[in-house]
Amino acid sequence: MKNMIIPIFFLFSLLFSSSLGSIQDFCVADYSAPQGPAGYSCKDPAKVTVDNFVYSGLGVPGNTTNIIKAAVTTAFDNQFPGVNGLGISLARADLAACGVIPFHTHPGASEVLIVIEGTLCAGFVSSANNVYLKSLNKGDVMVFPQGLLHFQLNAGNTSALFFVGFNSPNPGLQLLDFALFKNDLPTELVAAASFLSPAEIKRLKAVLGGTG
Amino acid sequence: MKNMIIPIFFLFSLLFSSSLGSIQDFCVADYSAPQGPAGYSCKDPAKVTVDNFVYSGLGVPGNTTNIIKAAVTTAFDNQFPGVNGLGISLARADLAACGVIPFHTHPGASEVLIVIEGTLCAGFVSSANNVYLKSLNKGDVMVFPQGLLHFQLNAGNTSALFFVGFNSPNPGLQLLDFALFKNDLPTELVAAASFLSPAEIKRLKAVLGGTG
Amino acid sequence: MKNMIIPIFFLFSLLFSSSLGSIQDFCVADYSAPQGPAGYSCKDPAKVTVDNFVYSGLGVPGNTTNIIKAAVTTAFDNQFPGVNGLGISLARADLAACGVIPFHTHPGASEVLIVIEGTLCAGFVSSANNVYLKSLNKGDVMVFPQGLLHFQLNAGNTSALFFVGFNSPNPGLQLLDFALFKNDLPTELVAAASFLSPAEIKRLKAVLGGTG
Amino acid sequence: MKNMIIPIFFLFSLLFSSSLGSIQDFCVADYSAPQGPAGYSCKDPAKVTVDNFVYSGLGVPGNTTNIIKAAVTTAFDNQFPGVNGLGISLARADLAACGVIPFHTHPGASEVLIVIEGTLCAGFVSSANNVYLKSLNKGDVMVFPQGLLHFQLNAGNTSALFFVGFNSPNPGLQLLDFALFKNDLPTELVAAASFLSPAEIKRLKAVLGGTG
Amino acid sequence: MKNMIIPIFFLFSLLFSSSLGSIQDFCVADYSAPQGPAGYSCKDPAKVTVDNFVYSGLGVPGNTTNIIKAAVTTAFDNQFPGVNGLGISLARADLAACGVIPFHTHPGASEVLIVIEGTLCAGFVSSANNVYLKSLNKGDVMVFPQGLLHFQLNAGNTSALFFVGFNSPNPGLQLLDFALFKNDLPTELVAAASFLSPAEIKRLKAVLGGTG
Amino acid sequence: MKNMIIPIFFLFSLLFSSSLGSIQDFCVADYSAPQGPAGYSCKDPAKVTVDNFVYSGLGVPGNTTNIIKAAVTTAFDNQFPGVNGLGISLARADLAACGVIPFHTHPGASEVLIVIEGTLCAGFVSSANNVYLKSLNKGDVMVFPQGLLHFQLNAGNTSALFFVGFNSPNPGLQLLDFALFKNDLPTELVAAASFLSPAEIKRLKAVLGGTG
Repeated sequence: MKNMIIPIFFLFSLLFSSSLGSIQDFCVADYSAPQGPAGYSCKDPAKVTVDNFVYSGLGVPGNTTNIIKAAVTTAFDNQFPGVNGLGISLARADLAACGVIPFHTHPGASEVLIVIEGTLCAGFVSSANNVYLKSLNKGDVMVFPQGLLHFQLNAGNTSALFFVGFNSPNPGLQLLDFALFKNDLPTELVAAASFLSPAEIKRLKAVLGGTG
Repeated sequence: MKNMIIPIFFLFSLLFSSSLGSIQDFCVADYSAPQGPAGYSCKDPAKVTVDNFVYSGLGVPGNTTNIIKAAVTTAFDNQFPGVNGLGISLARADLAACGVIPFHTHPGASEVLIVIEGTLCAGFVSSANNVYLKSLNKGDVMVFPQGLLHFQLNAGNTSALFFVGFNSPNPGLQLLDFALFKNDLPTELVAAASFLSPAEIKRLKAVLGGTG
Repeated sequence: MKNMIIPIFFLFSLLFSSSLGSIQDFCVADYSAPQGPAGYSCKDPAKVTVDNFVYSGLGVPGNTTNIIKAAVTTAFDNQFPGVNGLGISLARADLAACGVIPFHTHPGASEVLIVIEGTLCAGFVSSANNVYLKSLNKGDVMVFPQGLLHFQLNAGNTSALFFVGFNSPNPGLQLLDFALFKNDLPTELVAAASFLSPAEIKRLKAVLGGTG
Repeated sequence: MKNMIIPIFFLFSLLFSSSLGSIQDFCVADYSAPQGPAGYSCKDPAKVTVDNFVYSGLGVPGNTTNIIKAAVTTAFDNQFPGVNGLGISLARADLAACGVIPFHTHPGASEVLIVIEGTLCAGFVSSANNVYLKSLNKGDVMVFPQGLLHFQLNAGNTSALFFVGFNSPNPGLQLLDFALFKNDLPTELVAAASFLSPAEIKRLKAVLGGTG
Repeated sequence: MKNMIIPIFFLFSLLFSSSLGSIQDFCVADYSAPQGPAGYSCKDPAKVTVDNFVYSGLGVPGNTTNIIKAAVTTAFDNQFPGVNGLGISLARADLAACGVIPFHTHPGASEVLIVIEGTLCAGFVSSANNVYLKSLNKGDVMVFPQGLLHFQLNAGNTSALFFVGFNSPNPGLQLLDFALFKNDLPTELVAAASFLSPAEIKRLKAVLGGTG
Repeated sequence: MKNMIIPIFFLFSLLFSSSLGSIQDFCVADYSAPQGPAGYSCKDPAKVTVDNFVYSGLGVPGNTTNIIKAAVTTAFDNQFPGVNGLGISLARADLAACGVIPFHTHPGASEVLIVIEGTLCAGFVSSANNVYLKSLNKGDVMVFPQGLLHFQLNAGNTSALFFVGFNSPNPGLQLLDFALFKNDLPTELVAAASFLSPAEIKRLKAVLGGTG
C-alpha cells in the first residue's frame, strides 16, 4: 500500500511545486539590506523561522520611574521583523499613578487602544478642534483616527496598563513636547510659530534638554 | 484687557473657519445609509460623539461553554462605528481549558495577537506549506500574515485570554469547519474538492448542522 | 463620399458604445448624497461640466489683517468638487510682513510648497525630533512629509505668497494652538498632557476663545 | 445520537454568529444607490446570489463588421456587478482578418492579455518613447503597464481572439482616435495641441462623426 | 529641407529630455537584487526589452496525469518579470475528465476566471458560510472575492481549460489539503484545530507525504 | 536647579529613545541603491539634511525658444530626492506667446494646475470622449483626472507660467506626438493603429526625428 502512495504523492506534488518556489506570503525584515518606501527588504524565505513572527518584548512592564511616570514599549518593524510589509504593529504602555502619555501623533497610522489594567482618561482633538474625551476602564476600547493629537492619562490610583494596535508596521510617534522643546529649534521660532511665551519655551527646553 | 482679547480672537478665528467646516478626519459609520466598497457612509460630523469612538463590548469574557470551549468577541466596523474607514479593528478571544480557535483565515487583513492570560499554542501555514508553530506565554506577541490559515489552542491548564488587532475595519473571518461543513454544499462536492472521505464529511456536517 | 462615411462611422461607433456608457474617469462630488470613507458620492456624469474641474477661489489674496497676519485659502474636496476621489488638492497662503502659518499638521497627506512671492522661513520636525529648517525664496520648493508638525514664517519685509499641493482631496489641517487652546479641554488636562504651565494655557485660551 | 448532536451544534453556532451577521467579503454593485470614488454601493448581502458573480457576456464573439474589423466586449463593474470593489475585471477582443484595436490607454489600470486564437502584433510605448513591440501567438501573454498607449493588430490571415484582465473593476478605456476626432473639440485646437495638419484632422473628424 | 528639420527636432527634444531620463513606467523584476514588500527591485530600464513583458509559459497544457487530474501553470512575478509592481498576474488551469482544482485560497488577491474549453462546477464559500456554486460553460466568467475558499471541478466528459487573472503580481496560493496534510504539523494539532478524526488526517498525510 | 533638571531630562529621554532610533517618517532617495516598485531605496536617516527636502530647480524659467514655444521643468523623485515615497511631486511650465504643452497623459497620477501668469486654454478628454475645455486666468485652478489626455495652450499675448502638482512622486509623462512619431515604430503600424495617413505620419516623424 505504501508503495502505491509514494508515486501518487509524487504526481500530486509535481503540480504546483515549480511555480510556488518563491511565493511570498510575508516579507520578514532583513535589517542588513536596503530599506525602501514600503519597508525593509525581505529576508530569504528559506531562513525565516517562527521566531521572526513572535516578539516577547511587550511582556515586560516598562520602567515608569521618570518624569511622566509612564513608559511606552513598541513592537514596530524595526524591532519586530515579522510585521514588515504587513501593515500592522502594536505597543504597550505602562502608567504609574499620575502617569501620562503626553500629547502626541502617529503621522502614518490610526490606533486602537484596549485597557488591561486601571482607569484612563483619554482624548483626541479633531481638525475642527472638537475634543473627544472619555474615561476608560478595564476592557474598554478606543480608536484614535490617523494623525490627530491625542493623549492618555492614568485617572486612577493604581498603575495602568494598555495595549495599542496600529495599521502600519511603522506608525511613527511624534511627541509634542519633544518636537517643540527637545531640539535646537530657536526659542524665537518656537514662540513665533506657537504663540507660547519665550519664558515658557525656555523653561521646557531646560527640562527636556533642548537648546536654542 | 478682556476687551482687547475678544477682537483678536475674532480675527484669528476668521482665518480658517470657512474652509474647515467639513474637514473629515474620520467617518463614523451611519448604519442607515448605503455601504460601499470602502465601508459604511459617514455619520453627520455634527452628531458624532466620543461614544462612537469607544467600545465596551470587549470587556466581558465570552461564553466558553460550547464545543470548542472558546469564544471570539469582535469590535469590527459593524459593531464599532468609530473604526469605519480607519483601516483598523480588534477582537478578544477567551479559551477555557482545552479550548481552541480552530483553523480559520481573515480574507482581508493581517493579525497581531497579544496574550493576556494563559499559554497558547498558535500556528499558521504558509503558501509553501511551511508550518510556523509557537508556544506563547503572557505578554508574547505573534503576527499572522494576511489570508493564511491559522489557529490558536489553549496549551495550559487554566483559561486563556488574548486580544488581536487587524489592519482592516472588517477583516472577515472564515472558519474552515464552517466553510466545509456548516452549509448545504453537497457531500460529494466537498469530498471531490477536499479529498476528505464522505463519511468524515457527513460526520462533521451532522455536528455542525450542515446539510447535503 | 460623405454617404459612404456615415455608415462607416456608425459601425465604428457601435463597437464600444454600450459598454462605455458609464465609464467613470472621475467622481465629481455630489454634496447632497451620502459621503463615505473614500469621499463624496459621485455626481451624475451627464451633469458634470468643466466648471466642476475649475476653481477660482485661490485667485484672491486672503485677508491678513488678523493676529497671525496670514491667511490660508483651501481648494479641498468640500469646496472644489472636481478633486473628489482623485487623491489631490491644493491651497494658497498669504502672509503679510511678520505673518506666520503657525505649527500644524495634515493628518492624512504630504505637502509640497512653492514660493511665489517673498521669503519664508519654513521647517518641520521629525519623529526623531530633528529639525529641518530652511530659508526659502521665490521659486523654491519644499516637501513636508505626512503628518509631521511644521510651520511657515514670513522672513522678509514684504508680503509673501505660496501655494501648496497635497496628495489627498481632503488632507485635514490641525493647528496646534487651536487644538490645545481653542476648545473646552480643561486647563488641568492640557497642562497634564503638555507640561505647559496652567497660567500659559489660560493666557492662550483667553486669546483664542477656549474655555475650561 | 442525533439528540446529542443538536445541542452541540447549537452551542458551537452561538460562538460567532452575532458578530458575523454583516461580515462583508464582497460588495456586489447596487446600481440604484449612490456611487462613490471606490465604486458602487453594495447590494444587501441577503439578496446576493451566485449569478451576481458570474457573467456570460464574454462568451459571444463581438460583431467585427465595422471599420476596425474588431470588437471589444467588456466585463467591467457597470455590466458585471460582482467585481465592484474587488479591484479586478476583464474583457474579450475579437479581430477579423486585418482587424485592429487602435491606440488606446486605460487611465486607471494595468492589463494582461492572453491570445486564444490567431496571431497578434501588439505594442506599447513608454514615457521615454521606447517601443515594446511583439508578435504574439496562441497562448502567449503580454502585460501593458498602467496608462501607457498601446494597440493590438491581427497579424494573421484568420480571425483572432484574446482576453485581457485588468487590476481595476473599471479600468477606463480612452481610444486615441475617439479622443481626438470624435467630439466637438475645434480643429484648430486639435491641430495646435497635436501638430497634426488641419486637413488630416478634418478627414478623421468626418470619418468618426466629430464636429468643429 | 532635411537641414531645416534637424534643428527643429533638436529644439523640440531639449524640452523634456533631461527630466525624463529616469521616468519609470514599469519595474521589471531584477531577480538578483533585494526584494521588498512591494516586490522585486527594478531592472535597469536601459536593459529592459519587450521579452520582459511577454510570457509564453501559459501556451503549453499542464500535465494532468496526477492524482487531481489537473494542473495549474502560473505567470506570477517570480516567473514573469514584467508584472512586477504592476498589480496584476494570471494563470492557466488544465483539467482532465474528473479533474479538480481542490479547495484553496489566494491570500492576497481576488480572481477572475474565464472558461476556454469544457464545463466546470465552480464555487466559493463566504465568511457567512454561504455557498456560491455555479456550472460554467465556455465563455463564462466568474469572480472569486479575495481570500475566500474556492474550488473548480471539471463537470464535463472532456478536458477543460480556463484562465484566471489576479489583481496582484503574486497572489499566493494556499491549497487546503497541502496546508493541513503535506507538512509536519502533528496529527493531534491538526485534529484539535480542525475536528477531523486522527485516522482521516493520517490517511491524507500518507497520501500527500506529510509527517507527524 | 540645573543640577536637578539634568537627571529629569535623562529619565524622560529614556522613555522612547530605544524604540525611536529608526523611526522612518520619510524615505529620501538613495540613487545609488536598488529601486523597487514603491520607489528608490532610502538614504540613511542620519545623513539626511533639510536640503534633501528643498528643490530650487523650479525657480528658473525654462527655455521656450523651441518648436512648441514652451518648457516643462519637473521636480519628480529622480531630481528631488525628498519626495521619494511621499506620493507627491510638482512641475512648472513656461509658455511663450503661442506656446503649447501638447496632448499628453500622466500614466500614474492626477494633476492640479494653478496659473501664475498669463491666460491659458486648457482641456482634457474623458473616456466617453467628452471635452472639458476652459479658459484659465491668473489664480485659476484646474484638475486633470488620472491618465486622461490633456493639453494647455497659451491663450494670451504674453508669456504664461503655471505650476502643477501630482499625487505621485513620479507621475510619468507621455507626450502623444513623441509616442507616435519620435521613435522607430514603423509608419505602417502607426497608420494601422491610428488611422492617420502615412504621409502625415512621415511628415511628423521627420519633424520629431522618428524613423521607420
